Amino acid sequence: MSDSGVADIRTVACIGAGVIGGGWAAYFLSRGLRVRAWDPAPDAADRLRRIVDAAWPALTDLGLADGADPGAIETLPTAADAVAGSGFVQESAPEDLELKRSLLAELAAAAGPGVVVASSTSGFPMSDMATAAADPSRLVVGHPFNPPYLIPLVEVVGGTETAPWATERAAAFYRHLGKSVIEMDRELPGFIANRLQEAIWREALHMVAAGEATPEQIDRSITDGPGLRWPVHGPCLTFHLAGGEGGMAHMLDHFGPSLKAPWTRLDAPELTSELRDDMVAGADVSAGGRPMADLVAERDRAVIAVRRAVAAARGRA
Amino acid sequence: MSDSGVADIRTVACIGAGVIGGGWAAYFLSRGLRVRAWDPAPDAADRLRRIVDAAWPALTDLGLADGADPGAIETLPTAADAVAGSGFVQESAPEDLELKRSLLAELAAAAGPGVVVASSTSGFPMSDMATAAADPSRLVVGHPFNPPYLIPLVEVVGGTETAPWATERAAAFYRHLGKSVIEMDRELPGFIANRLQEAIWREALHMVAAGEATPEQIDRSITDGPGLRWPVHGPCLTFHLAGGEGGMAHMLDHFGPSLKAPWTRLDAPELTSELRDDMVAGADVSAGGRPMADLVAERDRAVIAVRRAVAAARGRA
Repeated sequence: MSDSGVADIRTVACIGAGVIGGGWAAYFLSRGLRVRAWDPAPDAADRLRRIVDAAWPALTDLGLADGADPGAIETLPTAADAVAGSGFVQESAPEDLELKRSLLAELAAAAGPGVVVASSTSGFPMSDMATAAADPSRLVVGHPFNPPYLIPLVEVVGGTETAPWATERAAAFYRHLGKSVIEMDRELPGFIANRLQEAIWREALHMVAAGEATPEQIDRSITDGPGLRWPVHGPCLTFHLAGGEGGMAHMLDHFGPSLKAPWTRLDAPELTSELRDDMVAGADVSAGGRPMADLVAERDRAVIAVRRAVAAARGRA
Repeated sequence: MSDSGVADIRTVACIGAGVIGGGWAAYFLSRGLRVRAWDPAPDAADRLRRIVDAAWPALTDLGLADGADPGAIETLPTAADAVAGSGFVQESAPEDLELKRSLLAELAAAAGPGVVVASSTSGFPMSDMATAAADPSRLVVGHPFNPPYLIPLVEVVGGTETAPWATERAAAFYRHLGKSVIEMDRELPGFIANRLQEAIWREALHMVAAGEATPEQIDRSITDGPGLRWPVHGPCLTFHLAGGEGGMAHMLDHFGPSLKAPWTRLDAPELTSELRDDMVAGADVSAGGRPMADLVAERDRAVIAVRRAVAAARGRA
């Protein structure tokens, strides 16, 4: 199954009409695809209509594909009906393992040859979800971020029974649609971004529970603090810059001991020389060979622009 | 000491000529203040010059105060010399507890009546740093984020011996200069934002150490994922939106069990009804009474603008 084949996919089945399923539907429609939807809720068609309508101005602002039609969505009476004739299946059912197991088995059985069934699960490994499927080879995790019509990231990872063609095809399809795809080598509960996000969330809950900070202080500490850097440089590159001219190597060699400080309830890993070297090499990859001064200038330009962008967006509220 | 008095502060002593101390100096200069600096390094004046020069285009772009002069900085031979005649003292020495203790004692002794000595420490509680000072009443933590000339957040918190006038005056001064100030009620190692940031960082180090993700994947999972939401909505308001129309209450009642899932190495706190109610009330404060549809529209506008802002800033690299 070659990558180029994904351009032939013209219809996607969206299973689930919640915030994520509806957001996916809006995104697929904006890329000029047709959507065949299903959800057991009696008002599923209305819900999807509302989600697509709410998202369409943003999608129009970002730029629609030729032929994009917010009306090109049909809600079918059964999941199998939605899958019939679809070139890709995106499952966004509630986060319930037993439900996912039986639903994914049904979707895998209904899908045509070469059709990938991707799950939007925010945390279950596919190896745990695929157990009821007669043929789990086409089952892949394709985990988006809310809202799926705006946030580019999609984490793609298969289970032990997933065929390589299926993960490759899912990644190629999402990339073809303009998504930023991370293909993970191995399964990990919560994948990557949700583990990081959940670490923040748990520390925040601990602080509120202990009376150390209010939710409002926590929110502002991010929006007016490190949150302004994260759209441009992730946590590793951020600490690379924190090391000054010496970058990540200086940061780890100099501030390594502060890893032992009682910040957060998350225990620090042992900073072995191997981990240190992996982090330094990783920062070089993230930096793309650019000198520190360029990275700093990029960050400064971006933070200013982000501050203005957010202020303008708030002002229009 | 009334808040209005802070407008009379025309000169700030900047102790330490590293990335943080130099960044503070650049910011104070951009607000039209004069800076008296000190650092034991023989090339301190040159370092400060380079940092101020590098920051000045960004500060000019953001808008300088009347009379702002990048040359209004003088490097003095001793810390006491720098403090003499200054209306506010910002200490940004290396993160070494013994060094901070003796330096803060010296600065407190040298400062004139009503002058606050604020420490940029990224994690030490003032009660631990103030132990050598004859009069610790004016010693306050004023923790900025890198770069201090661009990131608005400053966390302000006193130690057990700090006088209320000192924390109030520090907060008023930073606000007068345009900073986003969080006044903490109690001391907490790492304060708020660094605890949250460090939780992410530790989880990232664990993932790299375990071979689960590369630093580049970790960075992209943030920049192309949740990092795009964090400049506009912090972690609590983000999860409020994730709850759909039911907001934080629905999110906690529905997804509470997934707190038990093995995402991140950070143990989840017990989701007591009290914590649940505190989070729901806090989300209402953060939301400022705005209906969910307004919050979603604000997020969407902001995420689009942030994506464009970052893309433009990168394109100019």
